[in-house]
Order: sequence, then C-alpha cells, then structure tokens
Amino acid sequence: MSHTVAFLGLGSMGLAMATNLLKAGHQLTVYNRTASKADELKAQGAKVAATPAEAVQDADFVFTMVTDDAALQEICLGTDGILPAMKAGAIHASCSTVAPGTNRRLAEEHAAHGSHLIATPVFGKPDVAAAGKLWLASAGADASAREKVRPLLEALGQGVHDFGDDPGAASVVKLCGNFMLGAAIEAMAEAFTLAQKSGLDRQQVYEFFTSTIFNTPIYKSYGKLVAERHYQPVGAPPAIIRKDLRLVLDESRAQTAPMPFANIIHDNLSTTVAKNEQVDWAGFAERAAENAGL
Amino acid sequence: MSHTVAFLGLGSMGLAMATNLLKAGHQLTVYNRTASKADELKAQGAKVAATPAEAVQDADFVFTMVTDDAALQEICLGTDGILPAMKAGAIHASCSTVAPGTNRRLAEEHAAHGSHLIATPVFGKPDVAAAGKLWLASAGADASAREKVRPLLEALGQGVHDFGDDPGAASVVKLCGNFMLGAAIEAMAEAFTLAQKSGLDRQQVYEFFTSTIFNTPIYKSYGKLVAERHYQPVGAPPAIIRKDLRLVLDESRAQTAPMPFANIIHDNLSTTVAKNEQVDWAGFAERAAENAGL
Amino acid sequence: MSHTVAFLGLGSMGLAMATNLLKAGHQLTVYNRTASKADELKAQGAKVAATPAEAVQDADFVFTMVTDDAALQEICLGTDGILPAMKAGAIHASCSTVAPGTNRRLAEEHAAHGSHLIATPVFGKPDVAAAGKLWLASAGADASAREKVRPLLEALGQGVHDFGDDPGAASVVKLCGNFMLGAAIEAMAEAFTLAQKSGLDRQQVYEFFTSTIFNTPIYKSYGKLVAERHYQPVGAPPAIIRKDLRLVLDESRAQTAPMPFANIIHDNLSTTVAKNEQVDWAGFAERAAENAGL
Amino acid sequence: MSHTVAFLGLGSMGLAMATNLLKAGHQLTVYNRTASKADELKAQGAKVAATPAEAVQDADFVFTMVTDDAALQEICLGTDGILPAMKAGAIHASCSTVAPGTNRRLAEEHAAHGSHLIATPVFGKPDVAAAGKLWLASAGADASAREKVRPLLEALGQGVHDFGDDPGAASVVKLCGNFMLGAAIEAMAEAFTLAQKSGLDRQQVYEFFTSTIFNTPIYKSYGKLVAERHYQPVGAPPAIIRKDLRLVLDESRAQTAPMPFANIIHDNLSTTVAKNEQVDWAGFAERAAENAGL
Repeated sequence: MSHTVAFLGLGSMGLAMATNLLKAGHQLTVYNRTASKADELKAQGAKVAATPAEAVQDADFVFTMVTDDAALQEICLGTDGILPAMKAGAIHASCSTVAPGTNRRLAEEHAAHGSHLIATPVFGKPDVAAAGKLWLASAGADASAREKVRPLLEALGQGVHDFGDDPGAASVVKLCGNFMLGAAIEAMAEAFTLAQKSGLDRQQVYEFFTSTIFNTPIYKSYGKLVAERHYQPVGAPPAIIRKDLRLVLDESRAQTAPMPFANIIHDNLSTTVAKNEQVDWAGFAERAAENAGL
Repeated sequence: MSHTVAFLGLGSMGLAMATNLLKAGHQLTVYNRTASKADELKAQGAKVAATPAEAVQDADFVFTMVTDDAALQEICLGTDGILPAMKAGAIHASCSTVAPGTNRRLAEEHAAHGSHLIATPVFGKPDVAAAGKLWLASAGADASAREKVRPLLEALGQGVHDFGDDPGAASVVKLCGNFMLGAAIEAMAEAFTLAQKSGLDRQQVYEFFTSTIFNTPIYKSYGKLVAERHYQPVGAPPAIIRKDLRLVLDESRAQTAPMPFANIIHDNLSTTVAKNEQVDWAGFAERAAENAGL
Repeated sequence: MSHTVAFLGLGSMGLAMATNLLKAGHQLTVYNRTASKADELKAQGAKVAATPAEAVQDADFVFTMVTDDAALQEICLGTDGILPAMKAGAIHASCSTVAPGTNRRLAEEHAAHGSHLIATPVFGKPDVAAAGKLWLASAGADASAREKVRPLLEALGQGVHDFGDDPGAASVVKLCGNFMLGAAIEAMAEAFTLAQKSGLDRQQVYEFFTSTIFNTPIYKSYGKLVAERHYQPVGAPPAIIRKDLRLVLDESRAQTAPMPFANIIHDNLSTTVAKNEQVDWAGFAERAAENAGL
Repeated sequence: MSHTVAFLGLGSMGLAMATNLLKAGHQLTVYNRTASKADELKAQGAKVAATPAEAVQDADFVFTMVTDDAALQEICLGTDGILPAMKAGAIHASCSTVAPGTNRRLAEEHAAHGSHLIATPVFGKPDVAAAGKLWLASAGADASAREKVRPLLEALGQGVHDFGDDPGAASVVKLCGNFMLGAAIEAMAEAFTLAQKSGLDRQQVYEFFTSTIFNTPIYKSYGKLVAERHYQPVGAPPAIIRKDLRLVLDESRAQTAPMPFANIIHDNLSTTVAKNEQVDWAGFAERAAENAGL
C-alpha cells in the first residue's frame, strides 16, 4: 500500500533508506540542507521540498535521519520546522541516534500538536541500508501508531523490534548497540595487536575468529578494517560516533551506571579526533597498535 | 583409521573430548589424578592407567587437558611424567590453556626426546565439546606432524585451523579468544545494566541484540546468563578464567602491548574471586550491576 | 578598609568565609535560601536580606558560594537575581565550583550590565575556610578589578593567585584541583588496600607516607579517612564532588583531552552515590576495599 | 661507631649511598659488576672487591642495591654470591626494589645460613640520596637485628620507619610508594594537559598547585618535568619503573586487590618503553599530552 512519505536528511544512511522507500512504491518528498544530495532521488521520481515544513505538509509519515540532537531539534522546532506543519495524526519516524531525552521531549511536543513521534533507530552501515538489510527498533506513541508505521520500516530492513511506548527506550537500545560495536572493535584491536607483537599474522587471526566463534557480519566487516589497519572508506567519521559514545556516557551518568569499557572507547575516539585522522570511526582501533609501538 | 591414543586430564572438557575419541574408534587409555572420573570411559572400553607414564607408553598420540601451566609441566616432566615414557615419533596434542612460553619450552623438551608437541587449544564450553562442535587451532612441530594428528582433532570439533610451526602461536590465539569472550560478556554486562537502569527489560534487550547484529552462539549463550543475572551451571569457575586473563596480561607485558579491556576483565574476575562467588566465570558481569547499585 | 559586601550562599564553606569577611571589618549583608543559616552571622552584626537582589543593591563586592551551575545561574539571572540589582562597577566574586563556560557566560552578562564577574574559586575544606587558610585563584574582568577585590580575598585565605582575564581559567584550575585531590585519594585507597591484604597495618602505612614523601595537609587529612575507613564527618557529600568530576570530564571532552584517572574517580563516586552511602566524598575510597573483598 | 661494611651495586643510587656510609666513618668494601664505577669511592678510601663473596667476607653489614629480583637473587646465591661468604650474625640490608616474596625467600636462606636479611628500601631520587635525605623503611629478622643496622641506615637519610619482622612488608611499602608517585605524576599529566588545552599556561598551573595544596618536594620535582614536558636528566629509565609497577600488579594479583590506577600507570610506562623514548620514567606523562593531540 502506497503512502505519502517525507524523508528529511539525505546523508549516506538517509539516502539509502529513502531510496528503498521509493522503491517500495511510496510517494516520496525529500528535504536536505544541501539540496544537490536529492538529485538522484528526484531522477527516480521523488519530489524535492525547499524547507522541512514544505516537505511534510501532506505526509502521513515523516522520516528524519540527521546528524545529532541539535539538528533534530532544529528540524522539528526551528525555522520552517516540521512540527507546526505536520498533519494531525501523522507519524514522525525519528531514526537519528540521539539522547533518549531528546526523543522523549520531542514526543511530548508532537502529542501536544496532535501528531506522533516514534523513535525508530536503525542498525547497520550505509551498504547494509542500501541492501535493505537494516535492523530496526521502534518505541513511542502507542501500539496502534507503531503498527501503522511498521510496514514502512519493514521496507528498510530485515526486522523491526518493538520496545513499547517510551520513545526513549529505542534510543537507549541504539546507544547500547553502538557501544557494543565499539567494544567488539576495541577487543579485536587489542587481540590482533597482541597477536601481531607475538609473531602471528593479524589477518590469519582475524580469519580464524570470524569463521569460528565470532562468525557474524559485524565482526567480519569491522574486523577486516582492524586486521588490515586500513580504515577506508569512511562509513561514519570518528567525530560522529564519538558523539554517540558521549550520549552513552551521558545516559550512564544520568542512570548512575558506570561503564568502564565505554570510557575507553570514548577516549580512543577522542584521541582519533584530536589527531584529526581522516578514517572510518573503527580507526580508533589504531590506538591499541600505536600504544604498542607499532 | 584407529590409533592408540592416551588422554590425560578428565575434567568436564577432557571427559567430553576423550569420549569423542573413543566413539571415533580409537584405542584409548586414560589417566586422571582422581581415578573415579575415568569410570564412565572404562565402561565404554577405555583402559585406565595408574600413572601418566603408563598411560602413554604405547600411544601414538597423547592428549593432555589440564588446569594450568604447573599441572602441564608436572604431567610432562614430574614424577611418572609422560615425556620420558613417550614413544619416539609420538605426538603430544597439548590442549590446555597455558602460556605460549610453556608450550614452547615443553616442545623443546619433546624434540630433545624424539617426540613432538603440538599445541592444540580448543574453543567451546563442555556442552560444545560433548557435541563434537569445538573449534581447534594447532601449531608446533612441523606440517607433516600436524597432518598426522589432524584426523583425531577433527573428531573433536567443527574445524582445525593451522597456525604454523611455533607452538606458542596456538596458545596466543587461545588467549586472544578467551579475552574476546570476556570482552563480549563485559560489553553485554554494561549495556544490559544501562538499559535496565533506563527502564528497559534486560531480557528484551538481550533478545534483540542476539537475534540481530550479535546473532551468534557466543553472545546467545553467555548473554543469557548476563540477561538473567543467573550464572549457573558453572562451566568454568572465575578463578580458572582469571588465570587465563592473567596469562593474557603476562603476554601483553612481555610484548609491550597494553590492553585496557583486558585489565578491566581481569580485575572484575579478581573481585568475583575475592568475594568467593560460586558462579560461572561469566558471573563477573555482576560487577557492572553492583557498581550501578542494582 | 571597610567595604559594603554581600555574601550569598551560606553552606558550610560559605558560612565560614562570610564570617571571616565580617571579622575583617566589612559591612556584610547575607542571603541564603534557608534563612536560618544566617542566624549566627546576624548575631555578629550582619544584615540579612530577603532576596538576592536586596542583598546586593548597595554592595561594592558580591560573593556567591552555591552548589552548582544551575544555582549560580538562578541567583544571577533568576527571580530577584543579583544581576539587574548590582551597582555599576560592583564586583561579583564567583566562588562556586562551576563549568568554565558558566563563569564565562555570566561574565558577559555582567559586562553588559556594567558590573564585573571575577571567578574566585577556593581550595580547602570547611575547617580550612574557618581558619582563614584557603588558597584562592582569581581570573576575569581586568587586572584593575582583580586588584580591587584582592584584599577581600586575602582575608579568606593564605594567598591569591592571578590567572588573567579569562574567568573560565580560574574555573579550570579549580576543576584540576578537585581532580588531583580525587587522584590522591584513589591512590591511597589502592595502596592501603594492597598493603592491608598483604598483611600490613593501613594506619602504619598511612603514617609512614604522610610523614615522609607525602607530608602535606591534603594527604594527611584525606588519608586519615582512608586509613581508618571511616568517612565522617561529611565535608562534602559524594554527589557534590561527583558533579565536580562530571564538570572535569565535560571540559575534558570539550577540549578533546582524555583523562583516564578522572574516569575512574568519577565512576567510583557514581557507585558511592548509587549505593546511597552517607559519607564524605572521600568515601569513594571504599570501592578499592570492596573490590578486594574487604 | 665504625663498622666493617660491604656495599654491592654502584648505580646512581648505590654510589650516593655508599659515599655517605664512607663519610660516616665506616670501613667500606665495594663491589660492582662494572668495576670502574668504584673508582671514585676507591679514591676516597674504600676497598674494591673482585667478587661479591670477597666483598662481604669480613663485613658485619652488607648493603645491596641492584636492578631487579634476578640481580639480587644472583648476587646472593649465584657464582661467588654473598650468602655462603657472609659471617655468622652479619646483617644484609637489602635496599633494592624487589617483590615481597623475593626478600622473604632470601631471608629464609639467610636464616638457614646464620645471617640476617633486613629489607631496607629507600625513597628518593639520586640527588636526594647524595644529600643524605632519603626516607627508609626496614623490616625483617628481629627487632634486635633491626636496631643494630639502624644507625647505618640513619646515615643515609632523614628517618627510618620500622615495619616489623616480615621482610616482605618493607617491600610492599616500597611498591606502594612508587605506585603513589606514579599516580601523582599521571594526575599532574592529565590536569596540566587539560589546562593547556583550555588555554592556560602549564607552568602557571604547576606553580599554583605546588605552592599551595600540593606543596611538597615530590610534586615540585616531578611536576616540573611534567609542566615543562622535558624529562631530563634520566633519574630512572621507564623500563626500570615499569618493572616496579609490574611488581605492584603482581602483588595486586597475588592479594586479589584490583588497582585500576596502577594498570593505567603501567600501561603508559609500557607505551613509553615500546616507543623507546630516552627519558626519565616521569616521561610517561607524555601519553596524556599525546592522547590529546598535543
């Protein structure tokens, strides 16, 4: 069934997701601050709006995929923001990685306006998004609203998991996921560095583990970067995921739940940012190598 | 093809492995310090030896699976040890988790004696061993010797990976593996604790991740313990894996390769030992819960 | 020379400092949210104001010593706040431990209003404040304004150190100081715990170090608490100094300067807060004892 | 009162200490592996022995100050070692930084031989040793033996603290001391780096703290190196103090007492060794600067 859908935020993730919504037969209007990013979608039949408000005015479903909390706040409540423009009963699928509190506060604004915010963070890199193989969590509004948006989310990935009525819950799950990814990368970074300094071949150790007890796409794809010590292309830059780890630690503080691994991942990302390395965020794995004198 | 095989060390891992060698049709002689552990194998046709030396005197292949470096050293070179008793050309498959240097030194002793040591650490819990689903690494002696022992190793698991002539290399891989397992457990401990304190259900978060981006037996089996905060039955006690992490850190020092994650896992295991908790080693995950006041 | 001085915030630190300003001969008007805290000063001749604005309206110098950034913000710019009420040219000595950015932003508001903010954090516990033995840093406005307030600051302590025109600089110094105190406490906690578990007497180890290479009031006073494992009376509760460490880590993030020691101190304070222990903040030293099973 | 004294181990610490014993009027025989180090003492009247055994054969008191546990073991029990050569009732003042267990085991050997080992670690850099301003701990043998050696120890420093009959106790105190020094250095490294990145002058921050709440020779002398980021001359190289931190962590493991600060100091020393930096051990403070991109 075809819906009127708006998609705002056409970075590498957003572009892939919007393309899949278009392929699924929805009538798509898109918006991006840098308009040229929309060219490809326009050629495929999407409308291009000049402002967020214009993009959403006829939409039953509004997707946002932006960089951070400030950008989401701005696109909702800033100049020509979506909130005043959304139709009554329309659903905002908030896909960005933001603080639980940000989605909670914006959900209240939506409720006051008569629309719904459902937090729908996604798990996967841009190539996974393009393949329609993302995993999604969804939470917020009520079960009925979440059922309405579910078919659209299913067009984006392999499965949608429901986390209830608190939109913050889905954000927490997303933060946990990025943290666990970071932990897997750091674990491989330390292990492969130890192996290399002990005279083994990083690549062989990588192949062993990712074909046996860690035989999963996450370990394979990130582990390859760590094994080869080559962190290209840049899926997400270190500064972006450092922001995510900051959100993890902010939530850790707010909940009085110390996370020593998260501290280490965050700090290694900080050093990668401080050194201005132009690499994928997994490049923080170089800290282990560097600290061992490699 | 049936071989004359000795198996020494019948803990929960060793017993399962010896049983599979017997099932594979080999003529098995076993030895264990506590002789009663051999009763079941005897009923299935294994011979039971009174000393390590007696167990190995006719064997073409000798398997050892003991607690630590000292036990391996003792069973090789102590009173009635295997080394003087092994036949020329016989192969010792050293399965225990020990320091790379221990396997290296014992390999030299074997070479001087005319026998071979091949380090063959295994990956998997006792139930995995019983199912013949272990993963194995092998290194040491030469390619020809490793080819001879390969069919026996294949009877124990799903696959055997060759790491060359340095027996220490296979030990390093084993240490990396236990470290990476510990890192996965700590990552889940921190994530599930954060989620719980943020109002989510640990179990639901566990199910989401282990059915999506961390869909692998390791995360499923250890994650279940962490999600339920119930660390029974005891696959391996905290003191044993703390010893493994100590070996990791010893190698980390020897190679001048700092491993901040390994420090944290080791310390959490130490606290678990200091508190004398009678749990599986994954129970160190309780430190994250405890530090958050749960 | 006697001045018209307002003092706002009569916690244990503020009360001691205000008392010393009164003793130094200044005409003091005080304000505290809980008015009864002012009784003692009133008996000694201070006026008591009903609102912050009333307290400062005639003052040449305004001291504030409040709990956190929000409280300082409120007392400056909230209902009946000091800023609109301060005389032109009056100087606000901002003594609270707050983020550098908070003092910077408020300094701009003062400048716009025609008054001055000088950040003047103090170093020392309440008993040190009472004895007039604090150390002070000062920064902000210009050298001439800082010279004017200097004699009043000197009445509070042993010495005033000038950190230039950026009010944030003094806040950074204060944060560094609290961090370094925390590091000294954690170092003693780990050392005394190791010594105790090795069979030594904590008290004797404490006495040795604080009469030799760490012979300084800081190590003596905090070390005594750690040696005796008795963290009473409560100079500052764990939640307050945890807030300070949070400010340290916020600045560490803002400056992309990883601080692994600060992470550990912060997390140990968090656990102390999570366990709701009613102790002085130095009581986070119990984490080392507890993790060792003591 | 003049005694017959042997001094073995003439590194920069040992040389300074031996010189003070000579100045105190004792009849000194010295030994060093590299004999030329003894030239200066010879010119001042010391005898030079060709072997450890020869050095101690007439001595009532034997001092050793060597690099590590292996060197101490060798000089006691190796070829021409001191133990068989010492007179009955003679006292061995064991000054080196070694594991508690090493001094304990050697003490038993001495007891079996009829001589005494008293662990007498010293606190201070070479210039402090030369000035006769060391602090000393002593433990081992019995109170009567410790009283006999006390006047000689007092010639070396400012004070001698008694830690009872267990020679390991003094070693534990020494390890705690080096750990606490390392913690003070790391704390300054993180604080000064944060301050610098926040726009402050490292030197000014250093001067503030070491003239106020951290006004003690330790913070002044090591802090100067950290403030200037110039770690010359080399009092002790990183590899030596890394060994000390390894001993700290070994004791931490043996006592099941986690020490997170010690892990960080050790790892930063490891990186300094891995990078082969030719600096004083305090140069590990550069890790904080480096990780912040300075």
